[in-house]
Amino acid sequence: MAKKPSIPKGTRDFSPAEVSKRNYIIQAIKKHFETYGFQPIETPSFENSETLMGKYGDEGDRLIFKILNSGDFISKVDDVTYSSKNSASLTPKISEKALRYDLTVPFARYVVMHQNEIDFPFKRYQIQPVWRADRPQKGRFREFYQCDADVVGANSLLQEVEFVQLYDAVFTDLGLKGATIKINNRKILSGIAEVIGAKQLLVDFTVALDKLDKIGEEKVKAEMMEKGISEAAIAKAQPLFDMKGTASEQLEKLKTILADSEVGMLGVSELEEIISTVDMVGLQSASLQLDVTLARGLNYYTGAIFEVAAPEGVKMGSIGGGGRYDDLTGIFGLKDVSGVGISFGLDRIYLVLEELDLFPDSLDISLDVLCLNFGKKEGMAALKLVSGLRKQGLRADLYPTDTKVQKQFKYADKRGVPYVILLGDQELTNGKFVVKNMKTGDQNDYALDSLEEFVEKVKSDF
Amino acid sequence: MAKKPSIPKGTRDFSPAEVSKRNYIIQAIKKHFETYGFQPIETPSFENSETLMGKYGDEGDRLIFKILNSGDFISKVDDVTYSSKNSASLTPKISEKALRYDLTVPFARYVVMHQNEIDFPFKRYQIQPVWRADRPQKGRFREFYQCDADVVGANSLLQEVEFVQLYDAVFTDLGLKGATIKINNRKILSGIAEVIGAKQLLVDFTVALDKLDKIGEEKVKAEMMEKGISEAAIAKAQPLFDMKGTASEQLEKLKTILADSEVGMLGVSELEEIISTVDMVGLQSASLQLDVTLARGLNYYTGAIFEVAAPEGVKMGSIGGGGRYDDLTGIFGLKDVSGVGISFGLDRIYLVLEELDLFPDSLDISLDVLCLNFGKKEGMAALKLVSGLRKQGLRADLYPTDTKVQKQFKYADKRGVPYVILLGDQELTNGKFVVKNMKTGDQNDYALDSLEEFVEKVKSDF
Repeated sequence: MAKKPSIPKGTRDFSPAEVSKRNYIIQAIKKHFETYGFQPIETPSFENSETLMGKYGDEGDRLIFKILNSGDFISKVDDVTYSSKNSASLTPKISEKALRYDLTVPFARYVVMHQNEIDFPFKRYQIQPVWRADRPQKGRFREFYQCDADVVGANSLLQEVEFVQLYDAVFTDLGLKGATIKINNRKILSGIAEVIGAKQLLVDFTVALDKLDKIGEEKVKAEMMEKGISEAAIAKAQPLFDMKGTASEQLEKLKTILADSEVGMLGVSELEEIISTVDMVGLQSASLQLDVTLARGLNYYTGAIFEVAAPEGVKMGSIGGGGRYDDLTGIFGLKDVSGVGISFGLDRIYLVLEELDLFPDSLDISLDVLCLNFGKKEGMAALKLVSGLRKQGLRADLYPTDTKVQKQFKYADKRGVPYVILLGDQELTNGKFVVKNMKTGDQNDYALDSLEEFVEKVKSDF
Repeated sequence: MAKKPSIPKGTRDFSPAEVSKRNYIIQAIKKHFETYGFQPIETPSFENSETLMGKYGDEGDRLIFKILNSGDFISKVDDVTYSSKNSASLTPKISEKALRYDLTVPFARYVVMHQNEIDFPFKRYQIQPVWRADRPQKGRFREFYQCDADVVGANSLLQEVEFVQLYDAVFTDLGLKGATIKINNRKILSGIAEVIGAKQLLVDFTVALDKLDKIGEEKVKAEMMEKGISEAAIAKAQPLFDMKGTASEQLEKLKTILADSEVGMLGVSELEEIISTVDMVGLQSASLQLDVTLARGLNYYTGAIFEVAAPEGVKMGSIGGGGRYDDLTGIFGLKDVSGVGISFGLDRIYLVLEELDLFPDSLDISLDVLCLNFGKKEGMAALKLVSGLRKQGLRADLYPTDTKVQKQFKYADKRGVPYVILLGDQELTNGKFVVKNMKTGDQNDYALDSLEEFVEKVKSDF
């Protein structure tokens, strides 16, 4: 007997209902990416290993899925390496390709490879799956989509303003009111590390700070101390933890704290410009909030950083994030190209929309009309009718066999079809077809030789 | 210095222009899949190796990309296996997952796993990439998309009729007139193998016959002989090679040849029904052609088989294919579920549309409006204007810096933007903005406080 089939842990099958909800979110994101002038690119699912390795830290490297070389791969391993029986030294000998871990590094690789075809500033978006050999848990998968938009080759802070508007536009469109777009600036964090005398420990400082939401103030401070940041320095950073009030009040306080740090003051002035410009153009349903404890894990950020929180009351990690990085393409040999980008967390947005019941009911309908099958002769007429409806854009189907009417109605019911067509011998003779509204139970006649009336009726339901 | 980056052979980066053309084809296919009542599903990019291995023959197994286990994978290999240093025996010990090779086997796995949630007949479509470690060559890639639609749980020949109509609908929509949908039936091939006394060599017979287009009659016969089919049997099969005339003429001839074969006569009557029903409903731009030499390589087909040829004059292999298989899910333990499906060859359709210049010009436009940047004050007003245009659905952008006007125009030109907006100090004072039509050079004024007029103008261009 065949073994019961399964799928690898951390991966998912998506049913029609799930695909339709996911596409609803993706379409909204895509639409706004495009109205904001972003252009789509796609990159291969796997890259040469050297493109990916060493870009995400040791932990990241471990989570990259490697692809085994084809053919008699083992014969190409020298005996010395083989006899060591060591996974780390064997891997590069038997695997040259790896599944992409995110869309950012492949994008940087793309920009460098295609720099002569690209007109800068280049605004690109990319919506594709990525893979991580992470321990699967609720809301964390080994295969998931990233939805990224980035601009490279534009230093203007207008880009940051646009990204705040873009978040607002997408969430407003999805009916997700009350999202909070948190903003900070890495230069402010650098400035603080500088004035508290922990400049060379900036990375440890931000990595620890990044966990504030999750582990709380005390544990963050403990981690900082563990990393060698002095108690005195941490005490000096206390204003960070206590920062309250409006954005402009916070910025005023920061100006006092950071007065002696050039980079810190630059961060403050960048934020001032971004926040005031956003104020000027206005947001539709989201709000922009300065959060000086926001750090973001990835070390390539150098300017503004973003993170989006779901509306209050919904327990969920960030549903989006991003920031500015001054030298992303440098790793592939193209220097001095500034970039800034954001990402939408598809899976989490899905869960939030589900929790708040924000998916439109129309997504549940995958078929507008089912025509029942009453046998050979009637079936032929029905096929013509269904073909006509399809040509006018309706999603229509003819039940494949002339089985019991009850069974056909049951199928219509299960698939949630709003209209069922009955075209029997009697109707054929009269040149008509009967339409049953499955919700109300009403039945109406329409002429077989003019389908427009019925098509209009169905389309007006949406 | 950083090494010049590259991508693995057989893979591709898609530029914005290419993505937009590919999406144009995919959208047309999707639209018709949906009007024909198919529902989308998605399956993981990688499956457990045991799901895929052994389903595509030895050659297929070799072309499956295997994923290396994570962590210290080598420590889990026993010493006996390790000391053999043999790729074939080592592979299953260090790799448990593999990238999908097609969408059909994952779909069969999906149906079996989700059989209790599915309402049969189940019409599903799936448009996702697949991977094959094939030798890359012109038009053959290691990563490529498949666009499949299948019905499972419906024995009615109406399904075959619908698939012919579906091909016709998609190709008509894409402007690709004159495609030929070739049809045959595996039962006819079985019948012929039977009457010529080569029943047990049916697979060799069809595999050889399948190459007729590529290698010609003589070489096909030579291959058949090599496989042990007698010269006398091949001579009996000669009517196959000489079959001419209309579908009904050919079917009449087949009835004579196959009179003694039950399965063969069943194949003839199935084809008769499909062809006459298609005749009755009619096709828009494609034609249906009986081709008794059509065999299709995959052995799971048991009934009708399809293959689509590009319009005459375009040199290109088949741009689509499919057929009926009586027992696909049997490999995963679910017996007696009949299926029938077709596939669209995205990459080849792309090349055909390119060759015949059938992509709409509008696909080249990725931005409707570029607003020039004249400095701080004007820039703020421009940002508001651009935000307003985006809210109305236009793809609009503000040049990020107030660099030389010439440079900004050059960028507009390179991106192929049809309209450029000028909003300088003078215009601001007058409450107007100037729009330059980049094609004609005409300039027009519009009022800043009513954008609708301009938005209508741009939308009417499409």
